[in-house]
Amino acid sequence: MRKLILCAAAALVSTSYAALANDSVLQGQSDPKQWVLQTGDYANTRFSQLDEINKDNVKDLQVAWTFSTGVLRGHEGSPLVVGDVMYVHTPFPNNVFALDLNNDGKILWRYEPKQDPDVIAVMCCDTVYRGLAYADGKLFLHQADTTVVALDAKSGAVLWSVVNGDPSIGETNTATVLPVKDKVIVGISGGEFGVRGSVTAYNMNTGERVWRAYSMGPDEDILVDPEKTTHLGKPVGKDSGLNTWEGDQWKIGGGTTWGWYSYDPEADLVYYGTGNPSTWNPSQRPGDNRWSMTIMARNPDTGMASWFYQMTPHDEWDYDGINEMILSDQEINGEMRKVLVHFDRNGFAYTMDRLSGELLVAEKYDPVVNWATHVEMDKNSDQYGRPQVVAQYSTAQNGEDVNTTGVCPAALGTKDQQPAAFSPRTGLHYVPTNHVCMDYEPFRVSYTAGQPYVGATLSMYPAPDSHGGMGNFIAWDATKGEIVWSLPEQFSVWSGALATAGDVVFYGTLEGYLKAVDAKTGELLYRFKTPSGIIGNVMTYEHNGKQYVGILSGVGGWAGIGLAAGLTNPNDGLGAVGGYAALSDYTSLGGQLTVFALPN
Amino acid sequence: MRKLILCAAAALVSTSYAALANDSVLQGQSDPKQWVLQTGDYANTRFSQLDEINKDNVKDLQVAWTFSTGVLRGHEGSPLVVGDVMYVHTPFPNNVFALDLNNDGKILWRYEPKQDPDVIAVMCCDTVYRGLAYADGKLFLHQADTTVVALDAKSGAVLWSVVNGDPSIGETNTATVLPVKDKVIVGISGGEFGVRGSVTAYNMNTGERVWRAYSMGPDEDILVDPEKTTHLGKPVGKDSGLNTWEGDQWKIGGGTTWGWYSYDPEADLVYYGTGNPSTWNPSQRPGDNRWSMTIMARNPDTGMASWFYQMTPHDEWDYDGINEMILSDQEINGEMRKVLVHFDRNGFAYTMDRLSGELLVAEKYDPVVNWATHVEMDKNSDQYGRPQVVAQYSTAQNGEDVNTTGVCPAALGTKDQQPAAFSPRTGLHYVPTNHVCMDYEPFRVSYTAGQPYVGATLSMYPAPDSHGGMGNFIAWDATKGEIVWSLPEQFSVWSGALATAGDVVFYGTLEGYLKAVDAKTGELLYRFKTPSGIIGNVMTYEHNGKQYVGILSGVGGWAGIGLAAGLTNPNDGLGAVGGYAALSDYTSLGGQLTVFALPN
Ligand SMILES: O=C(O)c1cc(C(=O)O)c2c(n1)C(=O)C(=O)c1cc(C(=O)O)[nH]c1-2
Ligand SMILES: O=C(O)c1cc(C(=O)O)c2c(n1)C(=O)C(=O)c1cc(C(=O)O)[nH]c1-2
Repeated sequence: MRKLILCAAAALVSTSYAALANDSVLQGQSDPKQWVLQTGDYANTRFSQLDEINKDNVKDLQVAWTFSTGVLRGHEGSPLVVGDVMYVHTPFPNNVFALDLNNDGKILWRYEPKQDPDVIAVMCCDTVYRGLAYADGKLFLHQADTTVVALDAKSGAVLWSVVNGDPSIGETNTATVLPVKDKVIVGISGGEFGVRGSVTAYNMNTGERVWRAYSMGPDEDILVDPEKTTHLGKPVGKDSGLNTWEGDQWKIGGGTTWGWYSYDPEADLVYYGTGNPSTWNPSQRPGDNRWSMTIMARNPDTGMASWFYQMTPHDEWDYDGINEMILSDQEINGEMRKVLVHFDRNGFAYTMDRLSGELLVAEKYDPVVNWATHVEMDKNSDQYGRPQVVAQYSTAQNGEDVNTTGVCPAALGTKDQQPAAFSPRTGLHYVPTNHVCMDYEPFRVSYTAGQPYVGATLSMYPAPDSHGGMGNFIAWDATKGEIVWSLPEQFSVWSGALATAGDVVFYGTLEGYLKAVDAKTGELLYRFKTPSGIIGNVMTYEHNGKQYVGILSGVGGWAGIGLAAGLTNPNDGLGAVGGYAALSDYTSLGGQLTVFALPN
Repeated sequence: MRKLILCAAAALVSTSYAALANDSVLQGQSDPKQWVLQTGDYANTRFSQLDEINKDNVKDLQVAWTFSTGVLRGHEGSPLVVGDVMYVHTPFPNNVFALDLNNDGKILWRYEPKQDPDVIAVMCCDTVYRGLAYADGKLFLHQADTTVVALDAKSGAVLWSVVNGDPSIGETNTATVLPVKDKVIVGISGGEFGVRGSVTAYNMNTGERVWRAYSMGPDEDILVDPEKTTHLGKPVGKDSGLNTWEGDQWKIGGGTTWGWYSYDPEADLVYYGTGNPSTWNPSQRPGDNRWSMTIMARNPDTGMASWFYQMTPHDEWDYDGINEMILSDQEINGEMRKVLVHFDRNGFAYTMDRLSGELLVAEKYDPVVNWATHVEMDKNSDQYGRPQVVAQYSTAQNGEDVNTTGVCPAALGTKDQQPAAFSPRTGLHYVPTNHVCMDYEPFRVSYTAGQPYVGATLSMYPAPDSHGGMGNFIAWDATKGEIVWSLPEQFSVWSGALATAGDVVFYGTLEGYLKAVDAKTGELLYRFKTPSGIIGNVMTYEHNGKQYVGILSGVGGWAGIGLAAGLTNPNDGLGAVGGYAALSDYTSLGGQLTVFALPN
């Protein structure tokens, strides 16, 4: 079987676009023994061809070995496996370990960056880090303080390092980087500090900056061609990143880029989403606030935008649009389409033509979503592609200092950063979701560089009149926009899913369970209580002919911020502390890797 | 089988001395389903009657569940199990969790004391805590800052609390308490800060202080009867705690009591050992420095001493005498004796009559021990009971500012706090040992309250011309004073052993392995790499008819102080950092419980 896989990998690499992408990444992602990107592959499917562990035997899974990272607080992302070495990262201070899989996880090297701990104070949602990326013998680390470091994967030696942003004005990093061709593409965080979001490409070999594309501002800053870059099929026109803002608000406009990145080697387009406009008080920023809350398709060599789609114009709820774009081929209305599927914070799941940016499907993936009735799909309507906002839940219409209650989803969305998986075998997407609603009271706030620029008081609670829990794990048909099955969870599922050729889907829970369910039916096949709550993403690899499944535990992230940062006031942690208070009955801070396998 | 055990328990409780001891402890220790004392039982055997896991099936052991304590640094001691509840403690800040074994370890309550973190600076050997004790529905917590707290085991409510010492003069706590009769008996740490050691009894129900026995000072302070309290069969005589000291040095004389406590309900005697005399520079304290380095047998009601035995008069190497006393019946020279067996830091294992304090056997339990040739066993010799010091290794004879090299064992002894186990089935003791030697250079130091009062520079290294490792795990015949088998280990075995009726012996390693070996042969039967280095003690319990084995991971303690406190200078950490530097290639800080069981 190993041979077959290698052949398949070779086949992929030899296609015409191979050289355009990055040979080592393509080779790595098509070799299921390895896990070279946080997202599993460029397409962000988080699907593995490994099938030794399958739906019939997964019940026999055992813990094979474990590793403590030596750091507490929220552990997002997952380890990588390249050859016989596993690379494990930690939240701030962003330590990196290289573990020898041939020697019981012996530590081959560690890299422990020295960072000013002041950066912690300007990280909105815990000191998380979504992990390393591997390409061309290098590991790319993007530290909380925005230092991008290329490490020699063999020795851990620093090959180059470059500073992407400035924590003193609230710029930080939590995202992984995307290695594509000879570049690494990196994002930035700080939407709650009035940071103007951007994406930057650095030369993979030298660290030299190649281009930067801001989310808002003049055309030359946001890298659009007013005639050729489109929004829902129409050119964006001149000054599109300026003319939906009042005055200079765009300069502190948010639209940060702290989520996931995908890449289509054939189309040669990179996909990502931008975050909320700043501040959270919508009255302070009239207009659509382009291009916050937007899916972007860009050329990786130049940064030039091919198309945009703004999901939540003039956000009033903090529904950052940064969630991953999962690339697949799907039959829509009888026609095979190259699509991207995106589960937005705003509660709608979008299926789009990833070449043209055409909107194909937009449906709620949690029935409780109530802030909008639907997304207008009539191409002839002036509302085309826009969510139809329900006045009752409009924090802008209700105005400043008015508490808008019962908005679903809460600010952390029907899904936040926790990535979904897609199985080409079932054609389904597996989506870790939140089932949480909120009260939201905007207030006037003034901007001071490096200070929180939030402007709203929130409280969160389980979706009322539902199963009482704060999450669901669902299977989604993106061709129709329908939930296929849904598993209620007591807490939001803040962990990334993994789908495998064994027709098993894995995910973690905030209480700390690793769960395995049947990809077709959702039936629970196995669960194990890991040391701490899980906000990491499940990964799998093969070593010495055996399949392993790995998961980082370590409760935190926005949902777990109460535990992670020791907050108890219900409105603290941007409103998340109260809703998730009961988590402390189930788990405690941690930072551990647990690796599972079938018995020998 | 369960029934049988309960009957045995009942039988034990109904013996005449039951009321004299503590009914709940006697009942708990004789019910193998529970683990109510850190030491397993009053006799400190660390033996369990459970035999579902045995030497034939232990190879199939699996991880059943895990729990992160949310605290890093060294995790000594073990959880307790009382009924359906597990109690887990942490190092500083000494948090306590009650976990519901009927509900997947859900947290029933937590107790998180607020302690001044300044105490960390006056803890010599990491922020360790050797754990809780249970009696009469109460859990006894003895915090780093010497606050003794009685918690209601059901609710976690504080029933009483009392302050035993003063961290501002270097008094701290790391030891567990001994609940006996209606008292809890507690020790104190601070031998490296010139603390005058003492043991104190508090009323279990009120926290009222009942008695205190100092290790040195006037007779009324050390609670001796000059005529009736004996040393090797002879009355200690008047002023025994003063007349082997020069001037007032006894007031800052050390002899702290941070180790383990045993109790013989029949003899109604409590046993413990005292630590090193202060300072480590022997030239500053001429004389035998009584009663530092001494095994003490005391009446628990009054504190009055029955007998003493000083193992290392005038210590020159920091060989604290605090290691546990394991109580058993052994046939010595054809006669059954009620003995205590004590593996001293100084490298000699002592078998003594625990009623009379008669010295029966004193032999090296590591052949590399070189500072003394032997312990004089001739009762008629004026050297009776004294180790015969080798001049070359005498740091006193070599004098101040002279580096005495090649002394074996190192200051952390052939064994430190890591407790041994005894199996009545094999008659053997299972001893986690250090195989480390040192260079020791004493220097003059002046006393300032609350400041280190050490007076020696040390470096440590694996025993030369041996197997290259820093530890052995041995089986010991205490009747003959002989090693039966010895397993070399790369690092010191800093974890406490467990022996079971399944003829399996468990221990942990500093790299993080839990190991199970055959009690008869030492053959390795199972090993599993836990998240972090192990300095905790293996325990076992039964729940819902199934046997579990639990171990805390979390590297630290004196051996792991480099990792735990982030020290890299080889002479730092009282000389331990250099010797154990390679540990960082194997493990990282942690704080996790791993619970094992056989597959269902
Ligand atoms: O606007 C931003 O720049 C920004 C950054 C981050 C981040 O970097 O983690 C989060 C968010 N926003 C955010 O809105 C959010 O819900 C969130 C959740 C998490 C997390 O890791 O759990 N991070 C972030
Ligand atoms: O003299 C003292 O008061 C004192 C206290 C302690 C302690 O409380 O942990 C240790 C020691 N000494 C000591 O000598 C020693 O080797 C040691 C090892 C450890 C440990 O937990 O690893 N503690 C201590």
